[in-house]
Order: sequence, then C-alpha cells, then structure tokens
Amino acid sequence: MRSVSVIGIGETQMGRFPARSLREMVSIAGEKAILDAGVEKKEIQALYIGNFVAQQLCGQGHMGSQASEVLGLGNIPTVRTEAACASGSEAFRMGLIAVMSGIYDIVLVGGVEKMTHRNTETVTEAIASAMDYELEMMEGFTFPANFAMIASRYFHEYRNVKREMALCAVNAHHNASLNPDAQMPKEVTLEAVLSAQRIADPLSIFDCSLVTDGAAFVVLATTEIAKRLGRHRVVEVIGSGHAGDVITLAAKKSITSFAAATSAAAQAYKAACLGPGDIDLAEVHDCFTITQIINIEDLGFFERGHGGDAVAEGVTALGGKKPINTSGGLKAKGHPIGATGISQIYEIVTQLRGDAGPRQVRKADIGLTHNLGGTAGTCLIHIFRGE
Amino acid sequence: MRSVSVIGIGETQMGRFPARSLREMVSIAGEKAILDAGVEKKEIQALYIGNFVAQQLCGQGHMGSQASEVLGLGNIPTVRTEAACASGSEAFRMGLIAVMSGIYDIVLVGGVEKMTHRNTETVTEAIASAMDYELEMMEGFTFPANFAMIASRYFHEYRNVKREMALCAVNAHHNASLNPDAQMPKEVTLEAVLSAQRIADPLSIFDCSLVTDGAAFVVLATTEIAKRLGRHRVVEVIGSGHAGDVITLAAKKSITSFAAATSAAAQAYKAACLGPGDIDLAEVHDCFTITQIINIEDLGFFERGHGGDAVAEGVTALGGKKPINTSGGLKAKGHPIGATGISQIYEIVTQLRGDAGPRQVRKADIGLTHNLGGTAGTCLIHIFRGE
Repeated sequence: MRSVSVIGIGETQMGRFPARSLREMVSIAGEKAILDAGVEKKEIQALYIGNFVAQQLCGQGHMGSQASEVLGLGNIPTVRTEAACASGSEAFRMGLIAVMSGIYDIVLVGGVEKMTHRNTETVTEAIASAMDYELEMMEGFTFPANFAMIASRYFHEYRNVKREMALCAVNAHHNASLNPDAQMPKEVTLEAVLSAQRIADPLSIFDCSLVTDGAAFVVLATTEIAKRLGRHRVVEVIGSGHAGDVITLAAKKSITSFAAATSAAAQAYKAACLGPGDIDLAEVHDCFTITQIINIEDLGFFERGHGGDAVAEGVTALGGKKPINTSGGLKAKGHPIGATGISQIYEIVTQLRGDAGPRQVRKADIGLTHNLGGTAGTCLIHIFRGE
Repeated sequence: MRSVSVIGIGETQMGRFPARSLREMVSIAGEKAILDAGVEKKEIQALYIGNFVAQQLCGQGHMGSQASEVLGLGNIPTVRTEAACASGSEAFRMGLIAVMSGIYDIVLVGGVEKMTHRNTETVTEAIASAMDYELEMMEGFTFPANFAMIASRYFHEYRNVKREMALCAVNAHHNASLNPDAQMPKEVTLEAVLSAQRIADPLSIFDCSLVTDGAAFVVLATTEIAKRLGRHRVVEVIGSGHAGDVITLAAKKSITSFAAATSAAAQAYKAACLGPGDIDLAEVHDCFTITQIINIEDLGFFERGHGGDAVAEGVTALGGKKPINTSGGLKAKGHPIGATGISQIYEIVTQLRGDAGPRQVRKADIGLTHNLGGTAGTCLIHIFRGE
C-alpha cells in the first residue's frame, strides 16, 4: 500500500444560504481545493462525493456526475457515498483506498449539503432517513429524541453531566468565534446554555448541532506527489478506520459507548501505530453535546464516565492538553451533513499546516477526525500526521 | 493487485411487490448469496450496497447500516453508493477494489430498490433526480423524453431503427420468458411492439424498461479463496472500467455514443487483455431499446450505425453469435434501479456457471456487464471469466 497525503483543501462559509445552489457550493469549495493543491484539473483521476439528503430536499441525486460537470473534470469516474452524517468520510475513505492501492494517483473528495431552503418539518423528516423508517421514524423517533435517551442512559450509568455538556457548547462557540467559516461565531455563556429552551429532555437547544448549507473538498495524492509539489507542509493520512453497527437504537448492545466508534478507533490506531495519547487534537462528531462526551471516551482519550470531567477541567478547550473541535464542531461551525466529514479534515489539515490563525493549536503534529452516521450505525476515523 | 472472484449470488423475484419492505428484499437476496457462497456470516468483512431512490420513495437512507442489521453482520463497515441507475455497479466496484487491494478478503455487495408502492408521478419525479434538477427536471425533462431525443438524433445521424428497436423488445421478452426471476416473462410480437402506445416519440411503451421492486447480492472474495471453497465454477472478475460524463444532456459532446461507456469499455478491455470479439455474452443497460443499440456499438461489438443490423440479423438473440441480455434485461426482467447492476452480474455468473437452464448460452466462458447511470453520466463495465 502506498502512503497518501492531503495536498489541497477548500470549504465554503458554513451557514444559512437558502439561495445558494448545490452547484454553487460545489464550485466554490471544489475550485478552492484544486487551486490549493496546485494541480491541473486534467490530473484529477476520480471524484468521490458525500451527500446525505439532496435527493429529498433538492430533488438531486447522481451528484458525482453533477459535481464533475460543475468542476469541468471531463470523463473521470465519480462516486457518491451516503451513510447519513458520515457520508463525507465514506467518500474520503473510498478515495483513500483507491490511491493507497494504486488505482489512481490524484483524486478529489468532497461533500455538500443544502438544507435551509426547506421548512423545519421537511428537514427533520429528511434527516430521520438516517434511522430505520419503519421501526423508528414511523414510531415518532427523531434524532434529538434518540440522543436524549442516550444522555439519560449515560446519566443513569455514570452521573448527570448536564453542566459538562453545556461546557462542550461553550467551548464550541468560543472556537467558532475564531473560525471565519463558522455558522455561529459568537460566544455563549454557561448560564445561557443551562437556561436555554428544552428540546428533548435533558437536551436543550444549545446541546444540538446546526442545520447548515455548505461544502468542503480535499485533494488526495500519493505522499510522493505531495512532497514533489512542496507547496504545503505534507499532511499524511496515517490511519483509517471504518466500522458499523445496527441501525436501530433498540438493537444496540450499549448506547453509552458506540461499538462502531471503538472498532473504527482500534483500526485507525493500529494502522497509525499510535495510541490515544499521541493525538494532539481531534475533530469529533458532536451532533449533540452528550455525543462529544461519549466520543472522547470511545476514542480512549479519557476513561469511561470521565469525559465530562476532562471537559470541566478545560482539557478539551482550545488551550487545553487535548483540544477538541477547534473549528467549532457540528455545534457551532455547523453541520452541513454530507460535507461534515470533509470539513473536519479541512480543520485538521489547516491546524497541522499551522494556518489556523487565532485558533491555532501550539503543538499540532498529529490530528484525528471522528465522524458518526445516524445513531452510530456508521463510524469513520482518520489520523493525520504533519511531516 | 489480487485476483478477485464472485463466490456467491442471490436475487429476489423481480416485479411489483408493493407490500414487500426493503428489509424483506435485502434479507431474501442477501441470505441467498451468502448461502450460495458457503461462507459464514462472520467471515464477511464489509458490505457495499447500491440504492437509488429509497430516500425519496421510502424515507430510508443509511441503507448500509440497515442491511447489516437485517443480515446480522455485526460491526463490519458498510457503504451505500448512489450513481442513479449505476448505483449497484458502483457498489460492486468499491467492493472489488477493496478485495483486489488486500483491504478485505471477503465482502458482500448488493443493491435494492422499492418503487411500486408509490404513484407514477412520484416515481417519475424521484427517477428524475438522476438528471440535473434545476437545468433539466424543472424544465420538464423526463428520461423517456431524453432518450426519445437520443433516438431521434440517432435516426438523423444514421437511419431510422424503429423496427430494430422493436426487435430488441421482442428478444428481451423472449429471454425473460425463460427467466423465473423476470417481471414480464411473456413473449411479445413485433407487430404488438410497433403498434403500442406512444410515450415520447419515437419511443412507445415497449421501448421503455420497467418500474420494479427487487434486490440482488453477490459475495466477492480472492480467487484463492474461491478455488479453496470449490463449490462452483470459479468466476473471476478480469476487468473493471468506470468513467463519467457531464450530467446534462445538452452539455454532452455526442448523444449517439456515450463517452462514459466508451471510456469504461476501453479500461475494462485493457485490464482483461481482451477485445469486444472475445466476449461470449453481455448484459447491457437497456433502459430504452435505443440505448441497447447504442450500447452494443459503444462496446465495440458492432460498427457505428450498425447495431440495429446485428439485432435484425438475430446476432444478439439467445441463439445468436453475441447474445445480449439473456436475463430479459431492464426491459423485461425488470429494472430495480439500485439492484440492476448486481442483477446483471447475477445473470452473467449464472450463465458462466452453466446454471441458466432453458436460456443457457452454449459457449459461456467470458461475459460482460454494462451499467449506465442517468443520461450516461456514469458507466461501469465489468468482464468475468469462468475458469
């Protein structure tokens, strides 16, 4: 297997852009990534694109072909992947495997989502297609409801971490205030989060991630090509893990730890020959604040039941020992679902290159992305090293 | 790269089964394929599933995770691919690359579609998500309209092949009459086809493929494992081609030859070290009868403008020199969109194993599948050899 690196990155501003088309967002982020890589379009040999709900919300499928037309990529093969909120990371892994294995040398990988032009009910129903339609959606389940049950169970098994969950939101908004691409770049206070409107007990509105329009793209190439280009610090993909689980909440063995995440993490650490202690910073899938606490435990950063302690002690804050979601995360940078996994990688590469400006982490050599799909029915984890 | 073979196949009856759930179809076809392969479920390391419109018609996304739950595959990684009507073949190629490259040794690949429970208008709109929503769908384009323009252009550039198109339908229905899984297993006469109701001139209803519920699965493994199992004639995947094109009809350089198909064919022939003359039989994407004529020219089986002659001379019929769509094709076996690419492979493997009963092709050593997405915005071609 060949070593693979990220040679170019690009993303749109994240936010509410109901007048922006899928084509426009693909064009902005895709062109940025290609320009950043410094390669010619004719050198790109394949396109992988993650998208979750454009078929339901925009009437648009076959987005590989559409994106290829928008970006003028000729007759290259294209693939759309969909695994709910992990759609982007699946595109990344498919592109990674193709370059690792020698099928292609340079590929473009992206994700895009357009959501805010539709009303809340329509968006909620579309997002619910990530769960089982007959067994969950038709019974009235929604994602806030699912993750409220997960939080309640976590409180039962360990302790009430409502305050620590609120601190996750406070951190996320602080980091987002330093990220020009963030949807909600404004600070919030602990008191504001704790007194916010309830959505599904114990989750309040500040415990939930955002509905976002946006796109993100990266260019992957062999590390040999990355070194030859010499434009940026080389950011090598040193570990990739991909695992799954049953789709329904009720069928899971545990809901306070996600089997897909622990399995994907083990694969990624093994491939990278590293452990949790070696990771300088991580972007994790904080679809809800409770999810962030579970994720940092699943990744082995902190002991079971103690993720909240780490948050309370400032370990996961921007200046802490293990900064989490320096971008602002799904919570405050935004959650353009099909693009989320790629936007996480955008942040890690930006940090490893030392280009993160006021939110730059001092020691940023090894970064990790953790992307969940649905109620943790899918998880992809990638580890990156700045050379 | 390692040699990869198809070690198990399974499909459902194709047809109108509005009461069958996605789960039920996945279960039927997936369990058949695993049983046919003779492997344990715990030996399957990943699942790739093609689906086109379940999000729109069934409210169901994240189908990798759902299918894994249905089939009891534990925590293996899953991927859903979507490239309109080529969704199934994209899943196949992703699985193939993973086994070729040594990531996994045994993977399950499938496709499923559920369509007939919704009304015609809803289904037509969902299918149109394979074209550009803003530039085509909103202007009133539908797939019969697109392919009617393609047929008209073909008539203009070469000659009127309305009668030859009708003969494609006659052949398809004859072959389907010998296929127990076919949706329309009844013979039709040339006169009946030529006098049938017009849909979009020059296409009549018998020029159009079917709306179908169904699923198909295959198990892929290294050829070494296939030989060790020794259950069936080993069917090796000796060539894979994947190419794309712009999504919109108006942006294509030619619409009487599909650039995605000629590029994918060149890749597959090169990988297999074979040419068009070496192919004993093929399943090609006859979404419309005119498409079959263009496809057999794009594959190099016949000269430009002469595909219709070959059909008229009986070359592509079941007893002919180059039998096309022995299954009945999309036209008469059915077109369960996300499953179509896998069902094509099901037929080729069945033929290469010598298990096709009354529709068995006498010399069936090398077979080819050709699967288009949208208005030929995507094409995947695979070549198989019985060892």
